[in-house]
Amino acid sequence: MNKKIAVILGDGIGPEVTQQSIKVLDAVAKQYGHEFHYTECLMGADAIDKTGNPLPDETIEVCLNSDAILFGAIGHPKYDNDPNAKVRPEQGLLKLRKSLQLFANIRPVITYPSLQHLSPLKAKQLEEVDFIIFRELTGGIYFGKKETNEEKTYAFDECSYSREEIERVAHLAFQYAQKRRKKLTLVDKANVLETSRLWRKVIQELAPQYSDVAVDFLFVDNAAMQIIVNPKQFDVVLTENMFGDIISDEASVISGSLGLLPSASVGNGSALFEPIHGSYPQAAGKDIANPLGSILSAAMLLDHFGLNKEAQVVREGVEWTINNKFVTKDIDPVNFYFTSTIGDLIADFVSNKI
Amino acid sequence: MNKKIAVILGDGIGPEVTQQSIKVLDAVAKQYGHEFHYTECLMGADAIDKTGNPLPDETIEVCLNSDAILFGAIGHPKYDNDPNAKVRPEQGLLKLRKSLQLFANIRPVITYPSLQHLSPLKAKQLEEVDFIIFRELTGGIYFGKKETNEEKTYAFDECSYSREEIERVAHLAFQYAQKRRKKLTLVDKANVLETSRLWRKVIQELAPQYSDVAVDFLFVDNAAMQIIVNPKQFDVVLTENMFGDIISDEASVISGSLGLLPSASVGNGSALFEPIHGSYPQAAGKDIANPLGSILSAAMLLDHFGLNKEAQVVREGVEWTINNKFVTKDIDPVNFYFTSTIGDLIADFVSNKI
Ligand SMILES: [Mg+2]
Ligand SMILES: [Mg+2]
Repeated sequence: MNKKIAVILGDGIGPEVTQQSIKVLDAVAKQYGHEFHYTECLMGADAIDKTGNPLPDETIEVCLNSDAILFGAIGHPKYDNDPNAKVRPEQGLLKLRKSLQLFANIRPVITYPSLQHLSPLKAKQLEEVDFIIFRELTGGIYFGKKETNEEKTYAFDECSYSREEIERVAHLAFQYAQKRRKKLTLVDKANVLETSRLWRKVIQELAPQYSDVAVDFLFVDNAAMQIIVNPKQFDVVLTENMFGDIISDEASVISGSLGLLPSASVGNGSALFEPIHGSYPQAAGKDIANPLGSILSAAMLLDHFGLNKEAQVVREGVEWTINNKFVTKDIDPVNFYFTSTIGDLIADFVSNKI
Repeated sequence: MNKKIAVILGDGIGPEVTQQSIKVLDAVAKQYGHEFHYTECLMGADAIDKTGNPLPDETIEVCLNSDAILFGAIGHPKYDNDPNAKVRPEQGLLKLRKSLQLFANIRPVITYPSLQHLSPLKAKQLEEVDFIIFRELTGGIYFGKKETNEEKTYAFDECSYSREEIERVAHLAFQYAQKRRKKLTLVDKANVLETSRLWRKVIQELAPQYSDVAVDFLFVDNAAMQIIVNPKQFDVVLTENMFGDIISDEASVISGSLGLLPSASVGNGSALFEPIHGSYPQAAGKDIANPLGSILSAAMLLDHFGLNKEAQVVREGVEWTINNKFVTKDIDPVNFYFTSTIGDLIADFVSNKI
């Protein structure tokens, strides 16, 4: 297989974790006879420093012409602390999502037995947790009409959804469910909201096309409880933009470390793969950041290419490092390994050297 | 003190748990020289069975003429399972909230060391957790304009807030914070929503009137994480209707038992006190339901009357039963005590007989 990958290293720890993913992808290419062509491009504070623009046109072009985008992280405190800054690193990512029409954000939630001590939840709650959240990313109240009156006595936000917006992310979620444990849970608030009732109606109408998938429905307030009380009940969770923002962040903490969580944002054409952690500038350049979020994002990228066997081997490599206590400082502040060492180990695992 | 209390026993376990609260309130009255006059009235399935109406006018009238309302629970499966039912028990409560303009829902979240084994969270997370959530209850997206087009291809919900709606619940929350640990956290999504920016603006403007209260702001997705990771950071949490629905339900499970959580819904005139658990019809009439949610709601009712010392004694009675393992079947399925026994014990504690 021959694929073009746009690489956006970004800011803070972005470059060093993404380099580990490239190491691992190179090992995959060599071991399984693929060719991955990388094109580095700029976004975020790095791009502002070099070009004045958080998302240069060239980056958009490279991304549009690539089969996938591997992205690190963006953000720098010098912009966060300046309320008058006219350009901000985050604008780059928002604009890129829009340019590529990335309508679905996908976040797997997995727990590892050897990391249970880091989770706020008890071990009993964590066993067998393995689910994936599909969040609609370009519609809903975040992008609706919104206004505050001049006297600042009244404000409104509109949440709207079209059938088409719901269908495209729903098809994706159903397809994933078919490849997994064949269960899809729609999280909504259909007892109160018209948009939720439309979501429910569309899902019910699509369900017969995926007759091997069991569909159920959960109100978002109940979902917020169930994610803590009984997270293993979930397989594929599908929800609208704002509910997805809330429950995917809630779910992210149950694994015990944000450092090892990957994500994908998928559109009709391209797809972007990134760890959920931020640029964490305090750790930048120290070779101490956790590269697993990025490496597991690279595994999702391989899945996106249909290279499921290769993705699985990468995931096994990640598990092997965790189970053998080859972990970074965020996981074990005493006996820790460097970012680059973890990358080497997983590349070696893929190359059958371990 | 001489007070009129409307009593709505309701459905399922509602009557038996509420009877324990009345026992305790009677003990308080006797011990501290108050007079509480109870007027029983109908709501829910019970009211439908007896009058055909889930909220008879007489109930509204009694409630409007009372200083507070003590309420059990409503709901019966015979209505849940009938999609054609024209009257439903829940309509009674929604109409009562509206009639009394109960604009603030107040939910304390407390953990008890001896119940830590029931929580999905680790003991470390549970220590010193003691916060209270103020949820705006009559505005926002739940009550906004909402519509689906005829072709069912498009739907919208409008979320709106006026300055006045925000101010009245904010004043309440600030006043509670002053009597507590003097910290107020506004949960919003001000990086995205106009209504959230109005909430933030109003809170910032009110803050100087409560200069002893430290105010901070948290995005709702972050709040959903913090409630699990570090719940003891919170004192008073204030938020709009939908965010409040989600995070108060999420927070409710950390104590380990829904059976012991109280709530209050406060308006300009009256106030309603009820356990957060439902009517739980399977347990009705068996004397096994947990009365602590109701008894702690009665303690909130005493606070509402300004009887803080009395409320405190009731809470100490509750703690005494828990710490001495006088608990109902939901807490200890093997060595359990009856609903009525717990009520007797707490009444005896208040009467200094224990
Ligand atoms: Mg978020
Ligand atoms: Mg709720």
